[in-house]
Amino acid sequence: MTEFTDYMALAFEQAEQAFEADEVPVGAVIVSAAGRVVGAGQNHMRRLKDASAHAEMLAIKDALRQTGQDRLEGHDIWVTLEPCAMCAGAISHMRFRRLYFAAYDSKSGAVDNGPCLFHQPTIHHRPEIIGGLQDRRSEALLQQFFAAKR
Amino acid sequence: MTEFTDYMALAFEQAEQAFEADEVPVGAVIVSAAGRVVGAGQNHMRRLKDASAHAEMLAIKDALRQTGQDRLEGHDIWVTLEPCAMCAGAISHMRFRRLYFAAYDSKSGAVDNGPCLFHQPTIHHRPEIIGGLQDRRSEALLQQFFAAKR
Repeated sequence: MTEFTDYMALAFEQAEQAFEADEVPVGAVIVSAAGRVVGAGQNHMRRLKDASAHAEMLAIKDALRQTGQDRLEGHDIWVTLEPCAMCAGAISHMRFRRLYFAAYDSKSGAVDNGPCLFHQPTIHHRPEIIGGLQDRRSEALLQQFFAAKR
Repeated sequence: MTEFTDYMALAFEQAEQAFEADEVPVGAVIVSAAGRVVGAGQNHMRRLKDASAHAEMLAIKDALRQTGQDRLEGHDIWVTLEPCAMCAGAISHMRFRRLYFAAYDSKSGAVDNGPCLFHQPTIHHRPEIIGGLQDRRSEALLQQFFAAKR
């Protein structure tokens, strides 16, 4: 199994835990340049009663705590869904090296959809972006979640 | 003194406290539909060692804690500087009624600058937006801060 698959698998573990907790199933992990997982997060909007408690934001707080840094330069973030504007903005502030994500999100995504934030001339930091990895798996998980809600 | 001036004055108090703590001087307050201040925040990037600890994000967390709600529908947010993409995204998630801000920010603003987030067709919630209130006061405070750094 490649390094590539391992980290996204960890992000999916987070997403699946969110699903079991009746949260929109999205997960994220943060990996140092040395390949160490230094942060993980999953959606907690319901559990924390906070509509901004997205997987990426919580993974970032976790990684800042674990590393003692105020930014995450040289680190990569792996997410099971294309980040929204809030999360993409935070990813820019953190100066990540790479952003890997699974499913594209035409409704709320802000990386390859909507404001395409990292293509704005005013963006201060743009990570390398690799989208669409295991997108079918993420889409299936989200569809399963929302189908159960209807 | 009008209601209008009062709330922005409280946001400036936050910004001035940030200045004294050697933080980029930006402040925010959140006001309920009934006119009660339910949240306040100021930049804490240095003190919290977190490049995403912007005034608006901290004011939102404070207001969620104080109100026990998961969103801030019907509430207004007053900020001394045009919000960035991360904060504007969070403001949308919270479903604020109105966003009032002082100075425009051509470098990092995402409301009337850069991605103009609330004008994107994919934005889910757009507050009423009133920008440019007491912009000179905010600009002067920021200039004073950065001049001292040079």
